This record gives sequence, C-alpha cells and structure tokens, in this order.
Amino acid sequence: MKDMFGMLKKHHKETFQEAVKEGKADPQIISFGDYFVSLRDYFTSSSCSGRIVLMNLNEQETKKEAAFYRKWHRKVEFEEVLSALMENTREDLWFKQEAFILHIGARTLKQANKVLSAMKKAGVRRGGIMVAKQGKFIVELTGSNYMSLPVKSGKEILVSEPHLKFIVEKANTKLERNYRLLGEFEKECRKSL
Amino acid sequence: MKDMFGMLKKHHKETFQEAVKEGKADPQIISFGDYFVSLRDYFTSSSCSGRIVLMNLNEQETKKEAAFYRKWHRKVEFEEVLSALMENTREDLWFKQEAFILHIGARTLKQANKVLSAMKKAGVRRGGIMVAKQGKFIVELTGSNYMSLPVKSGKEILVSEPHLKFIVEKANTKLERNYRLLGEFEKECRKSL
Repeated sequence: MKDMFGMLKKHHKETFQEAVKEGKADPQIISFGDYFVSLRDYFTSSSCSGRIVLMNLNEQETKKEAAFYRKWHRKVEFEEVLSALMENTREDLWFKQEAFILHIGARTLKQANKVLSAMKKAGVRRGGIMVAKQGKFIVELTGSNYMSLPVKSGKEILVSEPHLKFIVEKANTKLERNYRLLGEFEKECRKSL
Repeated sequence: MKDMFGMLKKHHKETFQEAVKEGKADPQIISFGDYFVSLRDYFTSSSCSGRIVLMNLNEQETKKEAAFYRKWHRKVEFEEVLSALMENTREDLWFKQEAFILHIGARTLKQANKVLSAMKKAGVRRGGIMVAKQGKFIVELTGSNYMSLPVKSGKEILVSEPHLKFIVEKANTKLERNYRLLGEFEKECRKSL
C-alpha cells in the first residue's frame, strides 16, 4: 500500500513553502506552518490566521474570491476603511472581522485526538475532525472572535463616522484577541505534538 | 463493560424530552430531536436552531447566560429591536444573528462519519468530530449564516434607524436561510442514519 499520508504531507508542505516564498502566506501563520513542516505525522493545509475584510455581496450573498473588496491580515486604520467605503462601488459592501481557520492533517486518529487536546488546552472552543479516513484525518479549528455587518447598500454608506470608528476599534481588539489565541494554540502544539 | 453510550443516550433523551415538555426547546429543533430519540446509535445534546439576540457585553466580551438582553428563535420586527434598544441599559449592546449549532452523539466512528456525510450532502460546510473516544463520538456542526455588530455603547444608540432596518432585514433573511439549511440536514439524516 502506498504511503497516502506521506504524499499528502509532501504536497501540502510544498504548497506552504511556495506560498511563503511568494509572500502569499499570512505573516501570523508562518511560524505555525514551519513547525508543522518539521513534524512527521502532521501537516497543515489551507489555513488563515484571521483578518478584516470588506466584501462585495449580492442578494444571494454568495462568496467568491472576487468578492473581497479589501482584505487585511492585520489591524486597520479608520481612515483606510472609510476611504475604501467612499470609492465607487456597485454591490452591497459588508465589513467583516473573521477568526482564524486552520486545517491540520494527522496520520492516525490518536494523533488527531492530540490536536483536539491541544485545542482545548489553548482555549479554542470550536473545532473537530472533519475527515476521518484510514491514513487521512483532517482537523478543522476556528477562533470565535468575529464581526459581520452591512456597511454600504448600493452607493449609500449606511454607517455614521462615529459608528464606523467604534466598529473598527472593536474589530481591532477582536483581531488581536484572535491572534493571541492562535499563538496559544501554536504553543500547545509545540508542547504536545 | 457497561454500556456507556446507552447511558449517555438515555440521559440526553430525558433532558431533551424534559425541555420540550417545559416549552424550553427551540420550536425548529423539536422534529430533529424527536428523530434522534428514535435512533439506537445516535443522540443529540445541547443544540440550538439559530437565533437573533441582543447581548450585553462588557469590555472583555465575556459571554454569560445573563448576557442575553433579548433572544428570539424566529425572525424579528424592526420595532421590537428598536424598542429594546431604547430601554435603559448600561453595558454595550451587540446585535447578533447566530447560526444553528448541533451536537450529535454516535456510538462508533463509522456512525460519526455518516453524520459528516449527511452534513456534506446537505451543504453544511462547518463541522467535525470534536470528541472521539471508545463508545462516545460527538459531532459538532454549525451553519455559516451570521451577523454581529455593536449597536449601543453605554446609553448611546450607535445605529441610525434606516441602518437598523437594513440590518434587521438582512438578519431575517440569513435566519431563514439558516433554518432552511437545518431542514436540509435533517432530511439527509432521515435518509441515511
């Protein structure tokens, strides 16, 4: 039997290292990804460290990659959000602060369970094994800090400037808390995997 | 060896039936819970069908049961949200539309995997096995429709009436979509578990 897990790991390792080289990996996730590259029985795939976005959504609210009007993997300034809102846009714009989402592959169920333990110890409340097959266990985890609201309808900005300021402030606080939680999880993984 | 799973199932069955009798179960989840009561190898525990809430949050944004200022397991009227906002409150108020969250116990990993398959077929994108022990597999699933924003800071209402109207409208649409997805998932479970 082929080493299915080994092939998967090789593939995701290369994808990750490519992304880092091309500057496409979120800065907050590089140390985390590097650590997983060094492990024999785990890998990471398609993960995001958390972000603040302005998103174009039509009536159906279908999300496509093209829907990202702005995307920041860091805290934002009120002015840059406001100036983006004031640009000429057509569809509704939503302001979102999204939590990290991680995908971790493990060779065995026992090892996937170790990820769940690290998750609990770090205080990450949401997550589970989303694929459980011989040679392929994928754990998905997410943080629980988020915000989401419509800020523009057609050409009309819906939020007042003081409200937007308040929202940006809260989103920054939540994003910081999100990165801190991600850091805690990385620490627990380094201890126990 | 004791039938650990059987004891768990009995406990959660009684808790669910008690909640229904006392009118404490979400109406949208009763048919779903009843179905699981009828199965030998599955149970549901602490689930929520999705809701719209006004929540008191302090600076730390710690969520306690007492934090629910209003809680609706249904679509809301603009007027009832506005009048709640106009009441005399102290801490910040957040408006949230939350997706369903379900916990499903399965006797074996194979049966937990069936829940994951039903989930995928129904189009539920977020979920996994959060506990994987001999005789106790718990799958957690959540919908992906949500909104969350601060609407009141101390005594000051942050949203304009037109913005609040727009927000309520979007939240209602999302909540409907959430209930529809929950219905799809129930249908898939009834087909395949």
